[in-house]
Amino acid sequence: MTNAIYTFGEGRAEGSAAMKDLLGGKGAGLAEMCRLGLPVPPGFTVTTEVCNFFHQHKKFPDVFEKQLRTGLSHIETILGLTFGDAAKPLLVSVRSGARASMPGMMDTILNLGLNEETVKGLADRSKNKPFAQESFERLKKMFGDVVGKPLPHDPMEQLLEAIQAVFNSWDSPRAIEYRRIHHIPADWGTACNIQAMVFGNMGEDSATGVAFTRDPSTGEKFFFGEYLINAQGEDVVAGIRTPESLDQMRQTLPQCYQKLTDIYKKLEKHYRDMQDIEFTVQKGKLWMLQTRRGQRTAHAAVKIAVDMVAEGLITKEEALLRVEPAQIDQLLHPMISPRIKRKVLAKGLPASPGAAVGRVVFTAEEAVKWSEKKEAVILVRTETAAEDIHGMHVAQGILTAHGGQTSHAAVVARGMGKVCVAGCGQLDVDEEKKQFRVGKTIVKEGDWITLDGTWGDVMVGKLETIASKLSKEFHTFMGWADGHRKLKIRTNADTAADCRRALEYGAEGVGLCRTEHMFFEEGRIEVMQEMIAADSKEARKNALAKLKPMQKKDFLEIFRVMQGLPVTIRLLDPPLHEFAPHVEALRETNPMLGHRGCRLGITYPEIYEMQVEAIMEAACELAREKISVMPEIEIPLVGLAGEIRLLRELCKTVCERVMQSTGQKIEYKIGSMIEVPRAAFRADAIAPYADFFSFGTNDLTQTTLGISRDDGFKFLSEYEQKGLVHSDPFQTIDFEGVGELMKVCVKKARQIKPDMEIGICGEHGGDPASIEFCDEIGLDYVSCSPFRVPIARLASARARLKNVK
Amino acid sequence: MTNAIYTFGEGRAEGSAAMKDLLGGKGAGLAEMCRLGLPVPPGFTVTTEVCNFFHQHKKFPDVFEKQLRTGLSHIETILGLTFGDAAKPLLVSVRSGARASMPGMMDTILNLGLNEETVKGLADRSKNKPFAQESFERLKKMFGDVVGKPLPHDPMEQLLEAIQAVFNSWDSPRAIEYRRIHHIPADWGTACNIQAMVFGNMGEDSATGVAFTRDPSTGEKFFFGEYLINAQGEDVVAGIRTPESLDQMRQTLPQCYQKLTDIYKKLEKHYRDMQDIEFTVQKGKLWMLQTRRGQRTAHAAVKIAVDMVAEGLITKEEALLRVEPAQIDQLLHPMISPRIKRKVLAKGLPASPGAAVGRVVFTAEEAVKWSEKKEAVILVRTETAAEDIHGMHVAQGILTAHGGQTSHAAVVARGMGKVCVAGCGQLDVDEEKKQFRVGKTIVKEGDWITLDGTWGDVMVGKLETIASKLSKEFHTFMGWADGHRKLKIRTNADTAADCRRALEYGAEGVGLCRTEHMFFEEGRIEVMQEMIAADSKEARKNALAKLKPMQKKDFLEIFRVMQGLPVTIRLLDPPLHEFAPHVEALRETNPMLGHRGCRLGITYPEIYEMQVEAIMEAACELAREKISVMPEIEIPLVGLAGEIRLLRELCKTVCERVMQSTGQKIEYKIGSMIEVPRAAFRADAIAPYADFFSFGTNDLTQTTLGISRDDGFKFLSEYEQKGLVHSDPFQTIDFEGVGELMKVCVKKARQIKPDMEIGICGEHGGDPASIEFCDEIGLDYVSCSPFRVPIARLASARARLKNVK
Repeated sequence: MTNAIYTFGEGRAEGSAAMKDLLGGKGAGLAEMCRLGLPVPPGFTVTTEVCNFFHQHKKFPDVFEKQLRTGLSHIETILGLTFGDAAKPLLVSVRSGARASMPGMMDTILNLGLNEETVKGLADRSKNKPFAQESFERLKKMFGDVVGKPLPHDPMEQLLEAIQAVFNSWDSPRAIEYRRIHHIPADWGTACNIQAMVFGNMGEDSATGVAFTRDPSTGEKFFFGEYLINAQGEDVVAGIRTPESLDQMRQTLPQCYQKLTDIYKKLEKHYRDMQDIEFTVQKGKLWMLQTRRGQRTAHAAVKIAVDMVAEGLITKEEALLRVEPAQIDQLLHPMISPRIKRKVLAKGLPASPGAAVGRVVFTAEEAVKWSEKKEAVILVRTETAAEDIHGMHVAQGILTAHGGQTSHAAVVARGMGKVCVAGCGQLDVDEEKKQFRVGKTIVKEGDWITLDGTWGDVMVGKLETIASKLSKEFHTFMGWADGHRKLKIRTNADTAADCRRALEYGAEGVGLCRTEHMFFEEGRIEVMQEMIAADSKEARKNALAKLKPMQKKDFLEIFRVMQGLPVTIRLLDPPLHEFAPHVEALRETNPMLGHRGCRLGITYPEIYEMQVEAIMEAACELAREKISVMPEIEIPLVGLAGEIRLLRELCKTVCERVMQSTGQKIEYKIGSMIEVPRAAFRADAIAPYADFFSFGTNDLTQTTLGISRDDGFKFLSEYEQKGLVHSDPFQTIDFEGVGELMKVCVKKARQIKPDMEIGICGEHGGDPASIEFCDEIGLDYVSCSPFRVPIARLASARARLKNVK
Repeated sequence: MTNAIYTFGEGRAEGSAAMKDLLGGKGAGLAEMCRLGLPVPPGFTVTTEVCNFFHQHKKFPDVFEKQLRTGLSHIETILGLTFGDAAKPLLVSVRSGARASMPGMMDTILNLGLNEETVKGLADRSKNKPFAQESFERLKKMFGDVVGKPLPHDPMEQLLEAIQAVFNSWDSPRAIEYRRIHHIPADWGTACNIQAMVFGNMGEDSATGVAFTRDPSTGEKFFFGEYLINAQGEDVVAGIRTPESLDQMRQTLPQCYQKLTDIYKKLEKHYRDMQDIEFTVQKGKLWMLQTRRGQRTAHAAVKIAVDMVAEGLITKEEALLRVEPAQIDQLLHPMISPRIKRKVLAKGLPASPGAAVGRVVFTAEEAVKWSEKKEAVILVRTETAAEDIHGMHVAQGILTAHGGQTSHAAVVARGMGKVCVAGCGQLDVDEEKKQFRVGKTIVKEGDWITLDGTWGDVMVGKLETIASKLSKEFHTFMGWADGHRKLKIRTNADTAADCRRALEYGAEGVGLCRTEHMFFEEGRIEVMQEMIAADSKEARKNALAKLKPMQKKDFLEIFRVMQGLPVTIRLLDPPLHEFAPHVEALRETNPMLGHRGCRLGITYPEIYEMQVEAIMEAACELAREKISVMPEIEIPLVGLAGEIRLLRELCKTVCERVMQSTGQKIEYKIGSMIEVPRAAFRADAIAPYADFFSFGTNDLTQTTLGISRDDGFKFLSEYEQKGLVHSDPFQTIDFEGVGELMKVCVKKARQIKPDMEIGICGEHGGDPASIEFCDEIGLDYVSCSPFRVPIARLASARARLKNVK
């Protein structure tokens, strides 16, 4: 490594926005702002390479100290100050800055360079002894907190220790946890920025603030931010004092405000994206301390993307790449029913939109514990800090008593797409007693509350929520997505109501209709049990005859809703024990690998016969009404060519018989789920008997990895922590294992039938990374739950844009 | 098809021994005997092609009837008789004869050509009206039994119906069941032999008999057989009359006996194998009716093969191919301890050797029922018939009251390697009352009895059995096998006693030592439970410290026995719930896919640390005594490269530490089981961290097929019946699925490490067909239970002979 540091200042910089990997987001932003001629306090960035070297060798590279001194001279020359000089002391800040934003995760130390001697020089030069003393105290406290030892006298020693501390904070438990959640590789490392101090706390003509170039909650195009007079930046972020709106600044510091306005416009135009900026006003002079891509809600992301296309700032393709598919989820999250008359207990800041209902917990640990028991929780804190991340991750919503819209809680919650009400001052949180009080109302751990993050309302109890209404921009945006994707999007739906919702969200067919759910209803389960208990084929057929009209009715409704679109219906899949848990003889040691799926169809052909009859009779009945029906009959858990051969024959016979007797002609397909490795691996042997394949990646993951989804949680989270898996293989396809097997399957199937329809209907069908993979390996469609349909539409468009590249 | 029939007779034949596929075993044998100039009644064989055509088209081919008439003229010309002629009637038999012997499975009709008119001609010509009448009655009865309708008057009609019946019997339930058990493909079909009748029932100068060219039980080189004066062949086979020894024939029919002796010698020399022959003497003239390879016990098979090499009849390589590896099992089966003073209840014929202990059942159905409950059963019948096959298959032994050493029970039992005592005349079997009586002793269903098939003894109660002593010929034979095989043979052994037995049988190492079995012993399971219940790492380590000396002691014993040979030790594998079934929290939905194998090692590293310490401390202790130890530490259930990487590091650290502290140096290996599809598929990612691979094909089959071994029995037998699987995939590797995956694994592993040691330690390691496959795909060793070691030695030698070919 030759260049350990990159300097910036006075309209010039060695780095640029393009060097984010080496300089981190903050360092690259500072360099770029210098290049744009903006007022940035001079400084330099220590590269991420130095950080990685430091972690590997437990020391700095040999060239480092020399270059560090060069960096300091660069600042000293510009400012006419000297680091450690008693008369004209230079003070610097040391801040971390990784490639990806990790708000509040790593350490910062301000005012480095002060000691018993230089503090006097600062007091003399600023003519403000209390300010100099306060700055010194702040340094001693921060240094002690961060480095864990008393402040050394020698400024150079201070600086080296501070840089080490920043690098070490990259591997702090909270940073590791954050990286795990956000899938940030450990070897990215963090850069470290050493920059001349500017002070927002030098009196009423000084201030510090944070702003967004557009509203990060709604996406509205106006300059949005907060500032504090006579304060340092950390005070805003930490949420200790509640800051004021920028509108106020227009009056109190009009010249600075005008300058800031010019700058934000310049930055947004330059970056062609909404920016999150930090600034300090020192004695009436504006200094820029940061610019980066602004975090935003899904709603804002869509609106900003659509608006920027209209403004000619970006192309439609760029717009599609600007919104993370997972964010779309937020838009579909429920809101509180408008018919409900709210009894608002307390009002806070609307920090992250949507409605959340859950039981109150007061620590991140409790949040995790409760959520493991499948309880919905709301995390209530006086204020949140980095160590609360894992609790926020599992919570439905976050409620804090302190802090503004740019406080830790607000920023993190928006990033996670969690509902958040922040700075709710009426709240008196007692974490010891596990309760909070608002006036005379006491809410204890475990009590239900409802948050409205769009309005900042807190209500006691479980309020009714409804799906949110989708914006005009949303539909425009999704239209662009549809124009770019190749994958069809189907839905997993077992009822006509599910189908209707999925259609609204843009589904183009049903990829998985599970027939067994139809049997669990009251009045049906009893007949199902009668069928299971039958001790002769005759008795079984009698019970099945009672079930058939029920199934047929369901299919009639679904087909009617989905007219003109394909509907894949999976024949009975679960082991019979699920319907008759009291029957001991049906209990299995490993039901997942037991007598289920097509194995039932082979040993009890009369069950599948009844189901296929119900499907075809429903289809023929609608055909008579000129309603177009496209049934795809799906055989589950096929592993052997013989299974699908035999059952295809059975299904075909029934279909032909029903069509003959009704005089109708239906275009139907018979296909196979691909759920066990053998089926994937022997796709060429199975393909001749299947019109289509559909990957059941839930079961395929279980069998390929030999991990039960029900039991795997006991060790999978530890696996993630230890880096043995990148992510939960039941959420994102295990690309190297299951994914490779899928590739083999597609290849072998298409060798036999080049145009074979192949899709996916496991949970992975709604996961953006998995969808990208499905596009890449040439699947025809993904199928997911109705709520995930829009996510899938966007993800598949983005996949195409990326995979074509 | 141009040739529907192949004629034979008078020293000539259109067919030959080489045409077994087309003519069946019987037809090919008859043709070959004609070519050898032996006295064979003239006839012709309808080919298996005609049978297959008949099954496909439900009618005979067009050319058939014409060729049938040609065949008949062929016989008529030779004998000067005419089929259907009232004066000089030709009578024929119609017998099935498939490629593989299926004793008693299919139908036979004798005396065809008789009707109210021709019977008079027969009476006149034979000058024996009762004989003619009896023959006619026999025809009517057989025809009625087999064809299911009254005998037609027209002999040609009789013949066509009879041939159809023979073809139809190929698809009778009992024939299908037999084929399933013996893996005979349905499309082989059966041939049908039409042959001039000769009569063994024409008086005291007539006889019929069955013989073997060597003793089929012991392999001793003497002419061995039975005959009945004045009887037809079916009487011998059916076991209705108990026949006499051939020694008797030497006196009663000396000329015929001499001729028969010449013939058997000629046949054995010609076929270079022990033959099973059938003959009839009609009024002093000897006729040969069949020759085929004689079924034999394992003991006989080995002795005959070794003797024939000594006699210069066959080569050693041929000898190896003459003994089925599965047969070797018989040799190792226990015999009754010679120290026991037997109280023999009844004596029968020693029909199939070995000792069997079990509970009495009286029907095949009961045998199946009891054996499903894991009960050992002895099937007791007056006589057995084809429909008893499935009962015999599951029984430990068979006891019959009637029938000789060539009766159905005896032949089938020997073929299956089951113990059999036949023709035990003192037995009074009452199937209704579910009991049998011998004198005053009554034995009821469920009572325990012991059979000695080597001596023909029946005893009440459970007698102590011991492993049989292996013959000189056995060791010679196995020596030849060892000279030919490439695969090493290891054993699955958890105790020093297992190891000792396996060494005696020729094992060359331990391929799988399951450490968990060591924990189930009394005094250990309690400590294991203490370890499991531990609520802190400290408490767990305390319990583990108590377990370590116990494990170390076991390893010391095993290493001492196995000195100089590799010992693969698998670290803890089963889910902890198996050790603490009362702990609800440990219960899993699918334990097979749960928290087990290396997942335990990752979440509780202290367990594996203890085990590796015990292994290495034991090894180092022996090294000090100059005993060579070759430990191979095996990590179970690996699916991810990270798992083996992490655990390899852990094991290595412990090993190095122990070696350092003891000052010893041990050559150890660390390797991985391959038990889940992902591991096989990603072998290239796992190989860098493994010194060896061992296929755990039990689990690999479960995961690849998605079938639990514990639950699969519910449908797998139906799958076999329906032809969806060729054989039980847990017995013989599913070559097309699991096998292909194994191939991929070996290929990918050897791409990374060309010399990597790869073996197999699942149950399949002792299955001959699977061993052949393992040889083919280039494994280094197979590992199986001690009793299967000799089987594996032979199977791997045969594999080499076949695979090299």
